[in-house]
Amino acid sequence: MGQPANSPIVIAVDAMGGDYGPSVTVPSALDALRCDPRLHVVLVGRLDAISPLLGGRQQEFGERLKIRDAPEVVAMDERPQDALRKKKNSSLRIAIDLVKQGEAQACISAGNTGALMATARFVLKTLPGIDRPALLSRIPSHHGHTVMLDLGANAECTPEQLVQFAVMGAVIAQDLHGSAKPRVGLLNIGEEDIKGNDIVQQAHKLLSASTLNYIGFVEGNDIFSGEVDVVVTDGFTGNVALKAMEGAVSLMAKALRSEFTRNPWRKFAALMSAPVLDAIRKRFDPREHGGGSMVGLNGVVIKSHGSADTYAFGNALRVAMLEASKGVPTQITELLQAQPRPAQDQSCSQSTSIHES
Amino acid sequence: MGQPANSPIVIAVDAMGGDYGPSVTVPSALDALRCDPRLHVVLVGRLDAISPLLGGRQQEFGERLKIRDAPEVVAMDERPQDALRKKKNSSLRIAIDLVKQGEAQACISAGNTGALMATARFVLKTLPGIDRPALLSRIPSHHGHTVMLDLGANAECTPEQLVQFAVMGAVIAQDLHGSAKPRVGLLNIGEEDIKGNDIVQQAHKLLSASTLNYIGFVEGNDIFSGEVDVVVTDGFTGNVALKAMEGAVSLMAKALRSEFTRNPWRKFAALMSAPVLDAIRKRFDPREHGGGSMVGLNGVVIKSHGSADTYAFGNALRVAMLEASKGVPTQITELLQAQPRPAQDQSCSQSTSIHES
Repeated sequence: MGQPANSPIVIAVDAMGGDYGPSVTVPSALDALRCDPRLHVVLVGRLDAISPLLGGRQQEFGERLKIRDAPEVVAMDERPQDALRKKKNSSLRIAIDLVKQGEAQACISAGNTGALMATARFVLKTLPGIDRPALLSRIPSHHGHTVMLDLGANAECTPEQLVQFAVMGAVIAQDLHGSAKPRVGLLNIGEEDIKGNDIVQQAHKLLSASTLNYIGFVEGNDIFSGEVDVVVTDGFTGNVALKAMEGAVSLMAKALRSEFTRNPWRKFAALMSAPVLDAIRKRFDPREHGGGSMVGLNGVVIKSHGSADTYAFGNALRVAMLEASKGVPTQITELLQAQPRPAQDQSCSQSTSIHES
Repeated sequence: MGQPANSPIVIAVDAMGGDYGPSVTVPSALDALRCDPRLHVVLVGRLDAISPLLGGRQQEFGERLKIRDAPEVVAMDERPQDALRKKKNSSLRIAIDLVKQGEAQACISAGNTGALMATARFVLKTLPGIDRPALLSRIPSHHGHTVMLDLGANAECTPEQLVQFAVMGAVIAQDLHGSAKPRVGLLNIGEEDIKGNDIVQQAHKLLSASTLNYIGFVEGNDIFSGEVDVVVTDGFTGNVALKAMEGAVSLMAKALRSEFTRNPWRKFAALMSAPVLDAIRKRFDPREHGGGSMVGLNGVVIKSHGSADTYAFGNALRVAMLEASKGVPTQITELLQAQPRPAQDQSCSQSTSIHES
């Protein structure tokens, strides 16, 4: 399980993805190569777009830096089905193909989330016992980070899928926090009378019977409390909660900005408070958290924010390296196999599969 | 519709509810009586607990202040069904009874939410065309407040119920913002591939055919954007999102506190920044937002936070007065009747009704 500490890690980078494409992905990859001698990068994209940004640095990294031509680009607003069917020579597709072919241990893209998910699922397939991949992210919390999934890949989930998410989240939290038994919670609501729907109730039973360190139901505010390491929910609730949190933080940041610039006195107070405001900014900066992971696939696939700059993309690259070096997919399969039977091999009644034609 | 500007408004106050009971509710009611000459209050609860807190002020308000003895108290952690069946002489129950009997135009409680909802629903019944009441709150946003519902009363909802929520939210937003056509949005997720589940898709169709100012799907971050006045969702998603937002704000507040007290310099900066920090605290203080409304009932029922202090409870009292003076239940019935037929008279397949025995 995982890689020996010094073996090389090859990451396929979709150089064309994201709002800024190669102008972000290429410098970010070069920085990462400089920082970590284990890292090997394959930049996938249009040669004419990538080459000018290398600044002749290819020699510096030798065989650690390769370029792979991909003539097509998936647009940020392209329909995932169209990208999957019509863009077989896109940078996004070829980066994933490299993982499939064993030429890279992970791929990373700041491109179209839906297209990345659909293509990764089609090319890499899900791990044995996993019905559908999930979107996972690291949310800043009182104790560092809480791992949360699903964040939007599956609007409706079966209880068995929620258990699979719990297993995937536990593996990631274990690798991230280094804790052997991360605490897993199932997101629910607190009104005594109702206590959620049938699906969470059934998932609760399955999780209670699992080998995971399952601590029971948690509520929305617990995501930040530091009392739980992995928060499991369906993609609808998870996506709404994630964006609501981002909205709340952004509103509070805007309010701070507006209050601190209201008059010269307050501008002076803001100057005095600069180290505080910088620390807060850094702590709540989405760029810090390394983007999302698409978990449950036969391979490591990392999604960086579409609006990622070199700093954010670099953090996402580090997450890709961590997951690749730890062998996350193998770990997930092993932890899943350790679970009692009923939690596995059930297929999702709600799934709508996407086929290449 | 609504009350003439100067007619009296009678509010039944569950004086025993909340973590602090009469020590908060009684002073808060007295303050409100002093501020608004239209207000009449019936304090419902144990005479021996209420009387000592009046400080002989009953004469000051004459017939505007009445005490109604209620020997029983519903505990904060009591099961709603138990409260409903066994506590027919509780302050919570009698406050609601007063609304039913027409002796008060609204009731307010900081007590057990589940018990309040179950009892209000049993005693007052839902309005014609409303399947189930919803929990509504005012969330601070870029433009003031966004009205959001359901926040936890209904874990699963039909498309028709979501339309009913939209109507109820539009009436409240109209009275709150004074805007004739509040913008109504349906909470959904943004991934192009999925676009939510069947229920939101069907609700989307129904809302598009309604007379409401329906602006379509919104995402979690839009709650704060100022681009929408009413955000409609099921009680599971709404409750999780609300608590996630509260958690995010609380984490950011804690981080500010911790950063501003790290060393003497920073403590000095905090002193300089006091007006800014006070303004932020006030803006994001849940006490400012007046608690929640239970909408869809034959009467106005306001739920103040369990931990409300006199300030928070006073704000909730003002919301009760506003909803009572505007005749919110009548407005809801009228707006609902103006909707195309299919949006009404459907019963909730998921509802579990509570019966008194």
